[in-house]
Amino acid sequence: MQNHNWIGKTLALALLPMAVGAAWAQSAPEMTADEKTKAKQIYFERCAGCHGVLRKGATGKNLEPHWAKTAADGTKLEGGTLKLGTARLEKIISYGTEGGMVNYDDILTKDEINMMARYIQQTPDVPPEFSLKDMKDSWKLIVPVAERPKKQMNNINLKNVFAVTLRDAGKLALIDGDTHKIWKVLDTGYAVHISRLSASGRYVYTVGRDGLTTIIDMWYEDPKTVATVRLGSDARSVDTSKFKGFEDKYLIGGTYWPPQFSIMDGETLEPIKIVSTRGQTVDGEYHPEPRVASIVASHIKPEWVVNVKETGQIMLVDYTDIKNLKSTTIESAKFLHDGGWDVSKRYFMVAANASNKVAAVDTKTGKLAALVDTAKIPHPGRGANFMHPQFGPVWTTGHLGADVISVISTASDDPKHAKHKDKNWKVVQELKMPGAGNLFVKTHPKSTHLWADAPMNPEREIAESVYVYDLKDLNKAPARLDVAKDSGLPESKAIRRATHPEYNEAGNEVWISLWGGKTDQSAIVIYDDKTLKLKKVITDPAIVTPTGKFNVFNTMHDVY
Amino acid sequence: MQNHNWIGKTLALALLPMAVGAAWAQSAPEMTADEKTKAKQIYFERCAGCHGVLRKGATGKNLEPHWAKTAADGTKLEGGTLKLGTARLEKIISYGTEGGMVNYDDILTKDEINMMARYIQQTPDVPPEFSLKDMKDSWKLIVPVAERPKKQMNNINLKNVFAVTLRDAGKLALIDGDTHKIWKVLDTGYAVHISRLSASGRYVYTVGRDGLTTIIDMWYEDPKTVATVRLGSDARSVDTSKFKGFEDKYLIGGTYWPPQFSIMDGETLEPIKIVSTRGQTVDGEYHPEPRVASIVASHIKPEWVVNVKETGQIMLVDYTDIKNLKSTTIESAKFLHDGGWDVSKRYFMVAANASNKVAAVDTKTGKLAALVDTAKIPHPGRGANFMHPQFGPVWTTGHLGADVISVISTASDDPKHAKHKDKNWKVVQELKMPGAGNLFVKTHPKSTHLWADAPMNPEREIAESVYVYDLKDLNKAPARLDVAKDSGLPESKAIRRATHPEYNEAGNEVWISLWGGKTDQSAIVIYDDKTLKLKKVITDPAIVTPTGKFNVFNTMHDVY
Repeated sequence: MQNHNWIGKTLALALLPMAVGAAWAQSAPEMTADEKTKAKQIYFERCAGCHGVLRKGATGKNLEPHWAKTAADGTKLEGGTLKLGTARLEKIISYGTEGGMVNYDDILTKDEINMMARYIQQTPDVPPEFSLKDMKDSWKLIVPVAERPKKQMNNINLKNVFAVTLRDAGKLALIDGDTHKIWKVLDTGYAVHISRLSASGRYVYTVGRDGLTTIIDMWYEDPKTVATVRLGSDARSVDTSKFKGFEDKYLIGGTYWPPQFSIMDGETLEPIKIVSTRGQTVDGEYHPEPRVASIVASHIKPEWVVNVKETGQIMLVDYTDIKNLKSTTIESAKFLHDGGWDVSKRYFMVAANASNKVAAVDTKTGKLAALVDTAKIPHPGRGANFMHPQFGPVWTTGHLGADVISVISTASDDPKHAKHKDKNWKVVQELKMPGAGNLFVKTHPKSTHLWADAPMNPEREIAESVYVYDLKDLNKAPARLDVAKDSGLPESKAIRRATHPEYNEAGNEVWISLWGGKTDQSAIVIYDDKTLKLKKVITDPAIVTPTGKFNVFNTMHDVY
Repeated sequence: MQNHNWIGKTLALALLPMAVGAAWAQSAPEMTADEKTKAKQIYFERCAGCHGVLRKGATGKNLEPHWAKTAADGTKLEGGTLKLGTARLEKIISYGTEGGMVNYDDILTKDEINMMARYIQQTPDVPPEFSLKDMKDSWKLIVPVAERPKKQMNNINLKNVFAVTLRDAGKLALIDGDTHKIWKVLDTGYAVHISRLSASGRYVYTVGRDGLTTIIDMWYEDPKTVATVRLGSDARSVDTSKFKGFEDKYLIGGTYWPPQFSIMDGETLEPIKIVSTRGQTVDGEYHPEPRVASIVASHIKPEWVVNVKETGQIMLVDYTDIKNLKSTTIESAKFLHDGGWDVSKRYFMVAANASNKVAAVDTKTGKLAALVDTAKIPHPGRGANFMHPQFGPVWTTGHLGADVISVISTASDDPKHAKHKDKNWKVVQELKMPGAGNLFVKTHPKSTHLWADAPMNPEREIAESVYVYDLKDLNKAPARLDVAKDSGLPESKAIRRATHPEYNEAGNEVWISLWGGKTDQSAIVIYDDKTLKLKKVITDPAIVTPTGKFNVFNTMHDVY
């Protein structure tokens, strides 16, 4: 604003070139309108996730042209992209940094990298708000509830269907888990971040990164999108109302931009209410862009857990009365990202990834139970619950920035675990991984295995594999399964990253996504969980960069 | 922002004067830095209350250089101060409008009016945020709790003390209600908007419009300010934690800028937490400046009622656990301002003044009980409760924009009023006033009178008087008491406005503030409530523009 006024005043001074001169050195390099449009799109797709739309930083660093702050010890600090300059920024974008910045020299061209280096020296645009009216205008009710099937019109075992994000295709595949056959491929938003199931298990909800939300009815002979609505310009999460009496009644969606969550009718997606998440961080500073990361529905209360990234505030939102909306805002740590329930489904465990902590929320009392120190940048997905031979019930998270899986002892209401009480909310064991770059861990109550991927690891051997730990002997090194090799696909130039282990309903198969590059074939590789032997490879051309694969039963009941 | 980019791009185009020309016609008139500073201060003191710091409008109209919106019927509308231009704006500021804008030709000079007309064509500055750290840095603990008196060290009947805002002096007078003597005059923030009492009745809290909050300890022989803290740059409300077990534990303060509320320690004012009120209006649009209007503490729950003006959202904030903060956000109507409890203290009645409505909140269930249509711009202060001969318990509000007092039937848990149930939350009677411009109505459980002022009325006779209704015969015209005349002060050129009737503890005296002009003497004029005869005039030179006068007992117990 002051900058703006300054420029305004300069113009008022009869456009004196000498007055402009001094400031010009501090100004951003030139860009054409066309370059700005292209750079904006690349920024949204590749950079905003970690650095934020307003570039104030989150998991990634602040990328404003100029920033100034006072450190805890009173030291005045300043910096910014203008100070770094184009050449230095090009290097950082190309080769990444020790701090966790990924290299983009194999993703963007040299010209694109130069363009992005100039783009992030411009003052960030504030994207438009998105109101309830905007949502309503975007809402498309394709099939009213009354015109939908009254019963399931197909013979598919819906509970074992997998809803699979086909990231770069902007589509969703529904795959029959019993036959391993693709049942249906449907259009969705761009790069669907997650799919969630209605309490009834009939509807699949998706949300694209572009904010488009769809509801797919699996009761048709051929699954059909029955409504769509837009949540904003950048969205990551949806969940439904799961509590008894509210099944299929509401859907909640969380957006990165604008920073808010939206409540919709669960069967029609009709917009009902928007609630802003703008507010104070746990440090008491106002933040203009507190993005909604993960959202989950409680099984024990009519509540959603809404995790607000930049503020470190965890909101419990009671959906019994939308017009008189009750919520509890729990101070935890910055920056909240993903998480899952402990085995009792009373405690929600969420990564505060820039704080290297996991917050445990007691949803029964509506209070923070603990902040658990983990290794660098925990990324649990939804985590994995099992019974530890020494410490009783535990929940685990892998890390993007460290080569360990942290095993955290959780509270248990079961008196036989009372002896572990002093270990509650502590890391009781660290399982060694061959490297950092883990995104997901997974197990199943019927399994004795813990699966972990490492797709963000720079080494081909590690990124193309998954690692399987034996829960009966956690000191044993994990088995490595070479997913790229097992897929039977020809070796590709780019790394084929293996990610997101997901169990079937029975808990005896594990499905792994294997990303092809821009042009290479992708696959879903299925293993027998008991023998760890290859069981099936799904390589249809429709399967483009499969990412999240949500098994209907396990997603409905939060089995992990 | 787009404007900013546009200017940036223009500069980049080698400062071509012709490219600038076209846009310049749309630009604001020139102002010197000195003019801007002066205009900013006048805007804050005189204009921001109704139009908002960001000039998006509230009780007053939008004053942005350019605005565009879509009406409910789809019509595109646009306007702004640039379109109106300097000459037209000067006229509006000088003479006011039919729409409710006050004339400023007797308050500002011609040059000042011209300066303000130019100022409001500039892009509004966004004032800085105010963080928990800023609050902590501003906090001054003058006397720690341990060093304060252990018992009352004076013989004053504290329950009948009046805390009187001396608006233009930036001070507070404590006046002994038994002797009518000024006990102590203390420095406070600028134009103290309200004073509140601690649950114990020992501490007086004030909040200035400049955001300065003070706590005054009345147990000293000579009352003393024991701590101060700043809440932001524009504040209007404070209240304490009144519920059993939380007496004197917390203070809450509400700010206009930044739009947020702050929770402090009740005895030391140590800052604990800040909560932003930025968010969606009841229409589902994001608002960047939802100011905190009135705040009251519940007597029946450990909760504060926080009324957010621009959004029309009423928050019930539970103070039992500040780190895991529970709240209920109730949709009502725009723009919320002032209000008070019904006689049962279960329902809070708050004016939505731009909607010409009063919202009744059921604080027991945490739901909106009703939206009651009133006359134009209700301004109840805290309202007045009495037993209506026909309709049972009622609560009343006067209006800034209409010459009536609306008598609203409230719900009663008393079975003898069950027959009035169909009248609940309806205006059951309108009492005629001699004109509009009312700010406050007041009665007392021991009185049979209802008092009403009209200080904002343009007629001298009306503005200098108060009107007293007989509750036993509401059809009778009110008695007019000529407060200016009764004060015995010499007639002044400017109108001496009479405002804010307030009862003493016993409920047998009514105190009225009488504003002197810039230089004329002000007074507090005290009447016998039974006989309506003049009882006493307080005219000490220290009494500068007395405004709110808060009787300790009546304020502690919300007696009105």
